Amino acid sequence: MQVSIACTDHNLKRGNGDHSKQSATSPNVVNQARAKFRTVAIIARSFGSFTPRHISLKESTGKHTGMKYRNLGKSGLRVSCLGLEQLMTIAYDSGVNLFDTAEVYAGGRWVIHRPVFLCNGLQMSGLAVTKVAETERGLSRKHIIEGLKGSLQRMQLEYVDVVFANRPDSNTPMEEIVRAMTYVINQGMAMYWGTSRWTAMEIMEAYSVARQFNLIPPVCEQAEYHLFQREKVEVQLPELYHKIGVGAMTWSPLACGIITGKYENGIPESSRASMKSYQWLKEKIISEDGRKQQAKLKELNHIAEKLGCTLPQLAVAWCLRNEGVSSVLLGTSNPEQLTENLGAIQVLPKMTSHVVSEIDHILGNRPYSKKDYRS
Amino acid sequence: MQVSIACTDHNLKRGNGDHSKQSATSPNVVNQARAKFRTVAIIARSFGSFTPRHISLKESTGKHTGMKYRNLGKSGLRVSCLGLEQLMTIAYDSGVNLFDTAEVYAGGRWVIHRPVFLCNGLQMSGLAVTKVAETERGLSRKHIIEGLKGSLQRMQLEYVDVVFANRPDSNTPMEEIVRAMTYVINQGMAMYWGTSRWTAMEIMEAYSVARQFNLIPPVCEQAEYHLFQREKVEVQLPELYHKIGVGAMTWSPLACGIITGKYENGIPESSRASMKSYQWLKEKIISEDGRKQQAKLKELNHIAEKLGCTLPQLAVAWCLRNEGVSSVLLGTSNPEQLTENLGAIQVLPKMTSHVVSEIDHILGNRPYSKKDYRS
Amino acid sequence: MQVSIACTDHNLKRGNGDHSKQSATSPNVVNQARAKFRTVAIIARSFGSFTPRHISLKESTGKHTGMKYRNLGKSGLRVSCLGLEQLMTIAYDSGVNLFDTAEVYAGGRWVIHRPVFLCNGLQMSGLAVTKVAETERGLSRKHIIEGLKGSLQRMQLEYVDVVFANRPDSNTPMEEIVRAMTYVINQGMAMYWGTSRWTAMEIMEAYSVARQFNLIPPVCEQAEYHLFQREKVEVQLPELYHKIGVGAMTWSPLACGIITGKYENGIPESSRASMKSYQWLKEKIISEDGRKQQAKLKELNHIAEKLGCTLPQLAVAWCLRNEGVSSVLLGTSNPEQLTENLGAIQVLPKMTSHVVSEIDHILGNRPYSKKDYRS
Amino acid sequence: MQVSIACTDHNLKRGNGDHSKQSATSPNVVNQARAKFRTVAIIARSFGSFTPRHISLKESTGKHTGMKYRNLGKSGLRVSCLGLEQLMTIAYDSGVNLFDTAEVYAGGRWVIHRPVFLCNGLQMSGLAVTKVAETERGLSRKHIIEGLKGSLQRMQLEYVDVVFANRPDSNTPMEEIVRAMTYVINQGMAMYWGTSRWTAMEIMEAYSVARQFNLIPPVCEQAEYHLFQREKVEVQLPELYHKIGVGAMTWSPLACGIITGKYENGIPESSRASMKSYQWLKEKIISEDGRKQQAKLKELNHIAEKLGCTLPQLAVAWCLRNEGVSSVLLGTSNPEQLTENLGAIQVLPKMTSHVVSEIDHILGNRPYSKKDYRS
Repeated sequence: MQVSIACTDHNLKRGNGDHSKQSATSPNVVNQARAKFRTVAIIARSFGSFTPRHISLKESTGKHTGMKYRNLGKSGLRVSCLGLEQLMTIAYDSGVNLFDTAEVYAGGRWVIHRPVFLCNGLQMSGLAVTKVAETERGLSRKHIIEGLKGSLQRMQLEYVDVVFANRPDSNTPMEEIVRAMTYVINQGMAMYWGTSRWTAMEIMEAYSVARQFNLIPPVCEQAEYHLFQREKVEVQLPELYHKIGVGAMTWSPLACGIITGKYENGIPESSRASMKSYQWLKEKIISEDGRKQQAKLKELNHIAEKLGCTLPQLAVAWCLRNEGVSSVLLGTSNPEQLTENLGAIQVLPKMTSHVVSEIDHILGNRPYSKKDYRS
Repeated sequence: MQVSIACTDHNLKRGNGDHSKQSATSPNVVNQARAKFRTVAIIARSFGSFTPRHISLKESTGKHTGMKYRNLGKSGLRVSCLGLEQLMTIAYDSGVNLFDTAEVYAGGRWVIHRPVFLCNGLQMSGLAVTKVAETERGLSRKHIIEGLKGSLQRMQLEYVDVVFANRPDSNTPMEEIVRAMTYVINQGMAMYWGTSRWTAMEIMEAYSVARQFNLIPPVCEQAEYHLFQREKVEVQLPELYHKIGVGAMTWSPLACGIITGKYENGIPESSRASMKSYQWLKEKIISEDGRKQQAKLKELNHIAEKLGCTLPQLAVAWCLRNEGVSSVLLGTSNPEQLTENLGAIQVLPKMTSHVVSEIDHILGNRPYSKKDYRS
Repeated sequence: MQVSIACTDHNLKRGNGDHSKQSATSPNVVNQARAKFRTVAIIARSFGSFTPRHISLKESTGKHTGMKYRNLGKSGLRVSCLGLEQLMTIAYDSGVNLFDTAEVYAGGRWVIHRPVFLCNGLQMSGLAVTKVAETERGLSRKHIIEGLKGSLQRMQLEYVDVVFANRPDSNTPMEEIVRAMTYVINQGMAMYWGTSRWTAMEIMEAYSVARQFNLIPPVCEQAEYHLFQREKVEVQLPELYHKIGVGAMTWSPLACGIITGKYENGIPESSRASMKSYQWLKEKIISEDGRKQQAKLKELNHIAEKLGCTLPQLAVAWCLRNEGVSSVLLGTSNPEQLTENLGAIQVLPKMTSHVVSEIDHILGNRPYSKKDYRS
Repeated sequence: MQVSIACTDHNLKRGNGDHSKQSATSPNVVNQARAKFRTVAIIARSFGSFTPRHISLKESTGKHTGMKYRNLGKSGLRVSCLGLEQLMTIAYDSGVNLFDTAEVYAGGRWVIHRPVFLCNGLQMSGLAVTKVAETERGLSRKHIIEGLKGSLQRMQLEYVDVVFANRPDSNTPMEEIVRAMTYVINQGMAMYWGTSRWTAMEIMEAYSVARQFNLIPPVCEQAEYHLFQREKVEVQLPELYHKIGVGAMTWSPLACGIITGKYENGIPESSRASMKSYQWLKEKIISEDGRKQQAKLKELNHIAEKLGCTLPQLAVAWCLRNEGVSSVLLGTSNPEQLTENLGAIQVLPKMTSHVVSEIDHILGNRPYSKKDYRS
């Protein structure tokens, strides 16, 4: 298994060796960075001879790797169908150790190129995206611009490929948000912009404001999508895609760990749900709905066993089967789990319409107007 | 009492140590700066447990400080409800001494971070705003751009948060003004622009020119507002706010010192009104209208005593009670007076509709179509 | 008599000491510059107690100098009513000597600040304007941008106040010209743009293209204007001014030297008209029309004598009496003649409607729909 | 014969001596550059006393060289009627040797100024154009911007005169392409943009998207044009030119070498068609159509002999006779062949309507609605 990263090294900020060295070694910067922002880097991985039965016009396959690329919405940007959420966080967390780990893995299994650690002589390769306004500060022009500038400086990048506006901000007029996003794109700080956790109506408003003032519309929405949360990605976003070209990048394919099956017999001590700040997750799991979900996961586990894969791999492959999804972001910060998750790509060819129907039957939550892009 | 300053240090111009050192130590630069421009820095201050009865959708409270923030007009920019006019002037006036003073105060009471004095190792934090065209030179493209560039250089800032166009300029077409303001924003020299001492009609013209040519409209008008001057802020600006989102930042809450009560028994020798260049103020005070005002101030002083505050604190709190006002700029250059004025925030919760009515009755100048945002 | 220069030193390019030193001392650069471009710097001069009977709304008087400023068209840019054409050429021609000369004059009479010679410690003060496409190369986007960049580099300026498009170029679409002019303004290379030797119809086309594509329209036309050439400036440009705000800056007030009276008795040996490249001028002078002009100049000389001034001073004052003219550019490169020409400002108050009528009678060329801005 | 290059040296990136030195001497960079991009530099050549019978309004002749310039489409950019494709490739291939060769030729015949080799003290002179998206990567905003930045860096240029979008990309919305092209022009990375191998319909779409969003439309299409391929350049592009001002720059005047006559007796061993990657060319040549073409070339050779020139010179002159063609790009990388091809300019005056008709008769492929710009 080989991880290939698709993009060029043009993002790389030149001549900042000293500064980047400092970033890499200063634990304060690392912690600060971890706390304040999350970053997503899209990675790509070669996989066998899989050819989808219904080839989308927008889909292409890399010559040498057989890698499958999808357009990000109707933009011209091609992204690999599997991405890695929080790569920067991982990088910052692990410090120089990750690099070593990565090197070890490179020998046997996989490599993650880290855009940040220039001091190690590694060059950025891969799409870089970031979010602004993760905090309470909202989406004012000031915060969008300062937030992105801050991210670029911390990551030592000249620009990101996509900047996401995190959560809508009802206190800021949409015109101000779209003007600020257009500004950062025109200043060369970003190539595209997207939204995260916005409603379809809010995205439509951003689009029409962009049209009204000849500004640049968003290309993508980041939305939660997994076996137990389907409505937005399967019903609302396809409509947006067809009308205004906004695509879907999805996160939380394992529902914050619920789909790993580790909560089958209650809350283990070292799990996320046992942590104080994840009290809500714990409550969700031990609720009646939560117990029903665990029952369904047991049934799904049987399907996974039949297909010769793990439950998480099935869950990720199930997300990937939706061709309206440009990229599924993997949230794990654990190299072993990441490797396991990436194995979902081998499961994808096995997601026949029969298997998908079987899963729908178990879940019982197929949205009414669902359009299945593969059947 | 703690003064917290809300904003980031991104405004800070990098790598200009030498230059800034020179600015800080050169008395010529200081005097020149004082003479040529005024600068306003918004400060914020934590205050107790005040919660307004009618929470505006646009209002939020800082998590740790309990600080109250209002949006600047309908823009996404949050400003603290109390600001400090002429901070830069104070800084320039006081030179290194202010810094020491501020440090002393920091121990007991409050700190003002000064954006300019980089040589002391202090970093900019706080909104920075500036005005262009304070002088006779008007609002031509040339003067707006050169004026702002000059301010940024003197203040050693990369950009200001809001640039204000001071006084309308009938000799320059509105299109030229709005194009120049849009230019400085698109060049990254400012985040927003506003007006100062413009009529509602002039602001409407700027707005419609911005709409006509797809330029950036202003977000805010700086207007005089105090117990004896209410019409513009209470009648005209609310209409502008609802129609085009332009907010109000007010100045002169103490009417050039008249409301301090120090002119109760004539013009004291060391007061502003005794200065030659303030002859107009003296005449105003000793006029019949002026004497009537002094009589009203005596009555208002009784209310202040009942509420356990000083007359200036009552006057500032009275301005703050108007939630259509984004920020009240305090004009004092005297640390003791500033501290006293800031105390108005504790008085604000006592500004009940009963007290406000009582004040209206004394003043007898409540505008006809007044909308009280709190009752 | 004191020459004051109105503007700021913001145009000054910083940190190019070495380069500018080279420019100042290299004769090649000087000659090259002289050959390739002409530059105009607006100068201003204090003059006595003159107050025009019909004060234009657009006209203002400097506080300390009594200097009269007019808006450049309907733009907000104020220019002095007398300008100096080819100042840069003079500077380049004279090299370091001009500086000395200027200093000598500063003691007694006048100073010309030279924007270029930074090595002498002098800072730019005065409006800087330049022309592009003086040569055959036309007004393509490439040539406008490269031409202006070249001028800025040679003059060591960060930007000019006005860039003029010299002669229309029928081979380049108007959209391309206006887009390029808007580009250089938006890049900060110029504050405004104007035209030179364009017809009223061509200027109208530029204006309507600017309106169609939301680009920046021109503010000014440079046109020939003197006693024997009146139609364009007195009939066509006023209409443009009232319709689209384009103002007039005029050149050749002495008609290439014809109005100096030196050709009264034929072509003197050292005169311009005796030079080979001015053959056309010689032919014009010795033509029948030319001889009629000389006769009229004799009559005008009598008026000059009555007013106690020279014929050139009368001719310049006659141009200045037209308040539709923002600035009259003086073309002389001779310090003595320049001083004489500047004396026209003292003659201006004597240009009563009676005197103007008398001149009209002698000339016999008052255009039909002429609007006299002063009567 | 003298080769003159028309343009200024403003494109030249300043202060990159070290970097350029490295580029010039590193064989890796050279090979990489050769493999990844092709660059076209327009050259010009003086030719005798030729005066076209029907002078186009858009055509002009250089004062000193007698050189003939045509506007690139309806843009203001003047290009010489003969250009050189792949000049950069030649430069990279030949390394320092080309320079020496060029110098030798300069003595006797011609010089090619190479924009890249700054280490030799030569300055860029000539139009620089480049293509983006030569590879499979498409025309996303990301790839256009990164591709052009990469080219500029490799060529050590501040900007190119024209950037061409190579092949249409159905996976990228036209709005994104035109926005990205407008972005690179507004950033100063290019003066104009054009298309390459686009259909008339695709160019029309780009134009109308530019009009819809007030973006910058393309000025030129690069199209294949030779004796056996006429339809697009002679029928479709003239219509585009008249409607939207898009001009034609043509390539492959010798049909990949077919028109050299070297395939008259089959495929020679060292020829391009004998190479594995040119299998398609070989098949084309030995097909029935290919054999018919060879027969026609024999007849055309007789005409060439009558005119006293070679077959390739006739073919190039035949392209040049079409005044709707702004520039014919010569693709040869061989100095001897280049010299021969350039000789076509002397043949051009002999392309009378009689000769042209004779050629049409032999070819039998004159398009129905063909407009001959010279007859």
